[in-house]
Amino acid sequence: MKKADLVQLIHERKSFLCVGLDPNPEKMPQHILEMDDPLFEFNKRIIDATRDFCVAYKPNTAFYESHGAKGWEALKKTRNYIGSSHFTIADAKRGDIGNTSGMYAKAFFEDSDFDSVTVAPYMGSDSVKPFLGYDEKWVILLALTSNQGADDFQFFSSEEGEKLFERVLRVSQLWGNDQNMMYVVGATRPEKLKEIRKIIPNHFLLVPGVGAQGGSLEEVC
Amino acid sequence: MKKADLVQLIHERKSFLCVGLDPNPEKMPQHILEMDDPLFEFNKRIIDATRDFCVAYKPNTAFYESHGAKGWEALKKTRNYIGSSHFTIADAKRGDIGNTSGMYAKAFFEDSDFDSVTVAPYMGSDSVKPFLGYDEKWVILLALTSNQGADDFQFFSSEEGEKLFERVLRVSQLWGNDQNMMYVVGATRPEKLKEIRKIIPNHFLLVPGVGAQGGSLEEVC
Repeated sequence: MKKADLVQLIHERKSFLCVGLDPNPEKMPQHILEMDDPLFEFNKRIIDATRDFCVAYKPNTAFYESHGAKGWEALKKTRNYIGSSHFTIADAKRGDIGNTSGMYAKAFFEDSDFDSVTVAPYMGSDSVKPFLGYDEKWVILLALTSNQGADDFQFFSSEEGEKLFERVLRVSQLWGNDQNMMYVVGATRPEKLKEIRKIIPNHFLLVPGVGAQGGSLEEVC
Repeated sequence: MKKADLVQLIHERKSFLCVGLDPNPEKMPQHILEMDDPLFEFNKRIIDATRDFCVAYKPNTAFYESHGAKGWEALKKTRNYIGSSHFTIADAKRGDIGNTSGMYAKAFFEDSDFDSVTVAPYMGSDSVKPFLGYDEKWVILLALTSNQGADDFQFFSSEEGEKLFERVLRVSQLWGNDQNMMYVVGATRPEKLKEIRKIIPNHFLLVPGVGAQGGSLEEVC
């Protein structure tokens, strides 16, 4: 999906909501669990109920992989059921040496036709660039995550006072542009958004952590 | 697998070789490509040829995921074919918020019975700890990777001169112990091994990058 199309979608639908699809059997009602493909059936109902109110869907790959090949099929069926009316995010947090990241890009951009994939920055430029070689596909790079463990390394500070997540933003934006890169910035760190916007004024942000993790939609806005 | 059993394996087989299983159809002979499950058949021949000379096998999940559900089946068949005579590594470079990392642990330690999984440290302690809750299972945490992109962030230096990869080693060793954690240190950085051994004297290291990536086995030893 092109940036202009995503912007148009947001205006038309008057929404910037992204709906997560993390199907956990422990939280499903009995009649869904008794179906052939509970993961997909659960997602289908969520998608049907939210289609008009959101612009993006984000299946979290872990919840599919934990069911092996059958889970992978459910992920693909879910992707297809969403169709092309929404921006799709494979929340996979991948990242490896060049030829391996190329294979992950193939998995999510070719074998499954997702618009974007979340990528971890630890291994640097050559682990991210293979994802950027596709037209109208996006990398969503982890910058400042919403979990408590973000404090362990993301605030690691240089001699000049630059934090690791700031360096990730500053350096990585040169690998692509605001037409093929977005960043993850947790809703649990609203006070950081202003500084982050100074480093990357034009990139889309994926802001998880509203709700269960304690982030406030109002403060983020 | 317990640490003592892995140590015994190394002594018995007089080897510390880990064989990667990254099946790439572009590099397979025609007669393998014509078989029902080329990924598995290719691996099977490598395993048959190397079984007596190595102590570990490391399938790289990207090369399976890029084939969707069928690839995932090939990964599982490969895992089962290896059996219990070798240490098995799911080279997956995962890492996410707690409940999601828990699902990845389920994927690799329960749905597939791998001994270990490689994990990226960027998201910190709560993204790693769910993998440490299993008996005789291991996290292999990325510290200093073998690729060129490692320079982008892993050498990011604090006011006190501590590098990010050193901080990862120093902090993360407290999350587990040398019975359930190992570290990735690339063979392309042999000059760093001495310093790293000072921080973690007793942890096993997974040292990739010998061969195609230019690392020297002699220098690492």
